Amino acid sequence: MKSDPFLYQDIARQLETLILSGALRIGERLPSVRQLSKEKKVSISSVYKAYIELESRGLVEARPKSGYYVRFSTKQIQKITHIRQQAVTRRQKVKSLQEEVYVPLSDPTLIKLSINKPDTSILPVTKLKNSLLHTVRERPDRLVNYNNLQGDEELRRQIARISYAAGLLLYPDDIITTSGCLEAIHYALLATTSPGDTVAIESPTYFGLLKAIEAHGRIPVEVLTDPVTGIDIPSLETCITQHHVKACIVTSSFSNPTGAHLTEEKRKALVALVTRKDIVLIEDDIYGELHFDPHRLNACKAYDLQQNVILCSSFSKSVAPGYRVGWLIAGKYRSEIFEYKMNHSVTTASVTEMAMAHFLKNGRYDLHIRQLRKDLHTQCLQYLQAIYEYFPGPIEVSAPKGGFVIWVALPMGCDSVKLYRKLIKKKISIAPGQLFSQKLDLRTYFRVSFGSPFTPEIDDALKQIGATLQQMI
Amino acid sequence: MKSDPFLYQDIARQLETLILSGALRIGERLPSVRQLSKEKKVSISSVYKAYIELESRGLVEARPKSGYYVRFSTKQIQKITHIRQQAVTRRQKVKSLQEEVYVPLSDPTLIKLSINKPDTSILPVTKLKNSLLHTVRERPDRLVNYNNLQGDEELRRQIARISYAAGLLLYPDDIITTSGCLEAIHYALLATTSPGDTVAIESPTYFGLLKAIEAHGRIPVEVLTDPVTGIDIPSLETCITQHHVKACIVTSSFSNPTGAHLTEEKRKALVALVTRKDIVLIEDDIYGELHFDPHRLNACKAYDLQQNVILCSSFSKSVAPGYRVGWLIAGKYRSEIFEYKMNHSVTTASVTEMAMAHFLKNGRYDLHIRQLRKDLHTQCLQYLQAIYEYFPGPIEVSAPKGGFVIWVALPMGCDSVKLYRKLIKKKISIAPGQLFSQKLDLRTYFRVSFGSPFTPEIDDALKQIGATLQQMI
Repeated sequence: MKSDPFLYQDIARQLETLILSGALRIGERLPSVRQLSKEKKVSISSVYKAYIELESRGLVEARPKSGYYVRFSTKQIQKITHIRQQAVTRRQKVKSLQEEVYVPLSDPTLIKLSINKPDTSILPVTKLKNSLLHTVRERPDRLVNYNNLQGDEELRRQIARISYAAGLLLYPDDIITTSGCLEAIHYALLATTSPGDTVAIESPTYFGLLKAIEAHGRIPVEVLTDPVTGIDIPSLETCITQHHVKACIVTSSFSNPTGAHLTEEKRKALVALVTRKDIVLIEDDIYGELHFDPHRLNACKAYDLQQNVILCSSFSKSVAPGYRVGWLIAGKYRSEIFEYKMNHSVTTASVTEMAMAHFLKNGRYDLHIRQLRKDLHTQCLQYLQAIYEYFPGPIEVSAPKGGFVIWVALPMGCDSVKLYRKLIKKKISIAPGQLFSQKLDLRTYFRVSFGSPFTPEIDDALKQIGATLQQMI
Repeated sequence: MKSDPFLYQDIARQLETLILSGALRIGERLPSVRQLSKEKKVSISSVYKAYIELESRGLVEARPKSGYYVRFSTKQIQKITHIRQQAVTRRQKVKSLQEEVYVPLSDPTLIKLSINKPDTSILPVTKLKNSLLHTVRERPDRLVNYNNLQGDEELRRQIARISYAAGLLLYPDDIITTSGCLEAIHYALLATTSPGDTVAIESPTYFGLLKAIEAHGRIPVEVLTDPVTGIDIPSLETCITQHHVKACIVTSSFSNPTGAHLTEEKRKALVALVTRKDIVLIEDDIYGELHFDPHRLNACKAYDLQQNVILCSSFSKSVAPGYRVGWLIAGKYRSEIFEYKMNHSVTTASVTEMAMAHFLKNGRYDLHIRQLRKDLHTQCLQYLQAIYEYFPGPIEVSAPKGGFVIWVALPMGCDSVKLYRKLIKKKISIAPGQLFSQKLDLRTYFRVSFGSPFTPEIDDALKQIGATLQQMI
C-alpha cells in the first residue's frame, strides 16, 4: 500500500475535477474512506487528508455518521454585502404588485420560485397522515368540540420541549397556540401597541408583516437591515428615539426575503436595546428551526430577562403549511393576548392541533426536521450553483444559512418587475424586490425560493432566468 | 265502533292528564291515530279531533310524516316582553366577570348551563369522523398544504347551496371562509370602519361582539333591543344619526343572550335603513339554521340590493365547534376582506374545511340539521317546563323559536351575580346578565343554555336554581 505523503493531493485534485465537471453532483455521497483506500490502494490517512482538503475548500462536507457529500462552495459566488439605499421614486403600489404576483399562482403549470414554503415532496405527508388517522380514530368526540382555549395541552407540552433547542425553558402554560405565525404577530401587535403608534420593522421585510402593522392603524417604520447579519442595531436605536417606537418586529433567523441571520452578539444587543428603551420586541421565529449549521442560535427570547420579548412561531414552514398551527410565548402579556385569542378565533381547530401533538410526541418531528434541514441545505446549494452557472456576470446573491430564500441583486438600471413580466410569460414566477419595502426602491432585487427539490424543470427555469437577464443587462 | 261526537273531548282530556302528570313526557310520540282508534274503539275522525284539540292548546305538535308529539306549551309561561332600561350604577367589570364565569368551566363535574353550544351527544360525531377519515385517506398530500386562499372550493360550493334556504343566490366565489364566525366579524369590521368610528350593536348582546369592536379601537354604541323581535329600528335610526355610526352588527336570528328573532318586516326595514343611511350592516347569522319552525326566514342579506350587508356565519353552533369553519359573504367588500384574511391567517386549515365539504356534499349535513332542530326544540320545551315548574312565581323567561338560549328575568332587587356565586358552589354554572351589556344594568337577568339534552342532572340543576331563587326573593 502506497504511503507517499503527496498522494492525497492527487486524490483531492481528481475528485475536484469530477465535482466541477458535474460528474459528481451536489448532494451525492463520496465513496467511504475505507472503500476509496481499497480502490486506490492508498492509506486510509491519505484519503482522509484528501477529503479534509476538499472540505476546507467548501467542495464537500462531512455529515455526522454518514460520510462526505459533494457541496457547492458558496465561496465561488459573489455575495450581497449590503442593500442599496435608493430613494423611492415613481413605483407600483405593493398591493397591486402583490395581486399581480400571487393571483396567477393558482396555475398548476407555473414554476413557482416565488412561493416561500417547502414543497410537499419534502414534507412528512405519510407520517402526518398516520398521526391524523390516529387522532380521528382515538377521540372523534373531542375533535368536534372546542379544545382547551389556550391551545391543546399535549401540543403545548411538545412545543415547550422543542423550544429548549432555542435556549428557552418553558412551561406549557407559557404558550398560547394560534392559527399560524402571522396571527400570533397580529395578537402581539394588538396587545402591545395602540392605533397611531409606530412599529419598527426590518427593511426589506415580508409584506405580510407590513400589512399586519397597517391593518390595525399602526405605522410601520422601516429600519436598515444587513442582508447577512440582520437588522442594524444603531439604526434601530436612532429610529426608536426619533419615531417614539412602541414595538419592533424582527425575524431573527433567516429573514424573508434576504435570508439574513442575526448573530449571537446582535441578538443580545437587540434584547438589551429594547430592554433599555422599554419597548416590545416581537420576535418572528418561524424559520428558526431551518438552520443548515448543526446547531441553532438561541432565540432573542432566551436573553429576555425583563419580559420585553414576545416570540411568535409556527409549524407552517417546517411541517405542514395547511395545518395552521402556530404559537406565541407572550411573557407578561400572556393574559391580555389570551383574551384577544378568545375574542377573535375563540379556539384553534382541535384536530390539527391534536394530530400535530401526536406527530411531535412520537418522535416523528425530530426525525423529520433533521431530514428537512439536509434537504433544504442541498437544495440551497443546488440553486446557488445553477444561479452561478446561468446568471450573467455582475449579479450578486445572498447565501443563506437556513430557511428558503435567496435574494438576488441585479446591476443598477435593471428592473425586477420587468423581469417578472417577461418570465411569467414563460410560466416562471419570481418575487420582485419591490414587494418587500414601502420605503426603499428595491427594483434591482428579486427573491428566489428554493423550497422545491432541484428538478430538471427548476434547472431549466433558472437557465431561462439567466438568459432573460442576459438580454436585459 | 262508537261515533259519539263528544267522545273526542274525553280522549283529549285523558291525554292531557297523562301529559301534565308527566306520564307522557315532552318529546314522546303519541300513539298513531289508527292505533288509538283501534285501542279505544272510536272512529279515526274522533282521534284526529282530539289531537287537533290538544295541538290547538299547545300540548302536542304534529311533525310531518312522523305523527304527533308531546309539547310543553310555552303559552303557560310568563314571557319577557321588554328589557328593563335601568341605568348602570356601581357594577363589576365585564372582563373580570367573564373570567369569573369562564375560567371554572374546565371543571368536568360542573353542570354548564352557561355554555352556548350544542352538547357533543347531539352532534354528528361518527359521520364527521367518517368524512375526516375519507379526507385524510383520499388526499393526505393536499392536507399538509395551504388550501385555496379564499377557502376550499368544494366547501364554498356547498355553502352556496345551503344558503339558498336563507333566500340567498350565491356563487361560490362570493364566499370567503374564515376560522369561525367571530373572525368573519373581525374582518368585516376592519374592512368597513376605522379606529375611532362608532359601531351600533344590540343591547343586550354577546360580549365577544363588544370585544371585537373594542379590539380594533372602534366604539360600540348599544341600541335598545326587544327580547322577542330584536333590535328596535327607530332607536337604531336615532343612534345612527346621533353617533355618526359607520356600521352595525345585528344577530338577525335567535340572538344571544335573549333568543330575539327579527321579524320579516324588521329585516326589510333594517336593510332599508342601512341602505338609506349608506352604512354597513354586519349580519351575524350563526344561529340562522337552528329554527324550530318548519321554514327559516330570509337573511337580511337577501334583501340587500345596494351591497350594504355583510353576512357572517359558521358551522360552530350547528355541526362542529372544534372545526373552526366559518365564512362571510362580503359583496362589494370582498377583495378588501380577502386581503385581510391573506394577511392575518393566510389560509384556513385544509383538513377541517375539506372534511366539512365532504360532510355537506354527501347529504350528511341536511339529515343532521333536521335532527338537530328537533333535538333543540324538544330540549327547549323541556327546559322551559322545568323552569315553569321549579322557578318561583314572578319570574319571566324568553321562549325562543330557535338557537340555544333562554333569557330569565328575576324580580327587581335580585342580583344574578349573587345567584351565580351561590350556584357555582353547588357545581351549577349560569351566565349572569351583566356579561351582555356595558350600558345597561342587567343584574336582574341571567341566561340558561339548553344545548345539552335534558338529563336528570339538568332537571336537578334547574330545581336547585329554583330553590336558590326562592330563598333570594
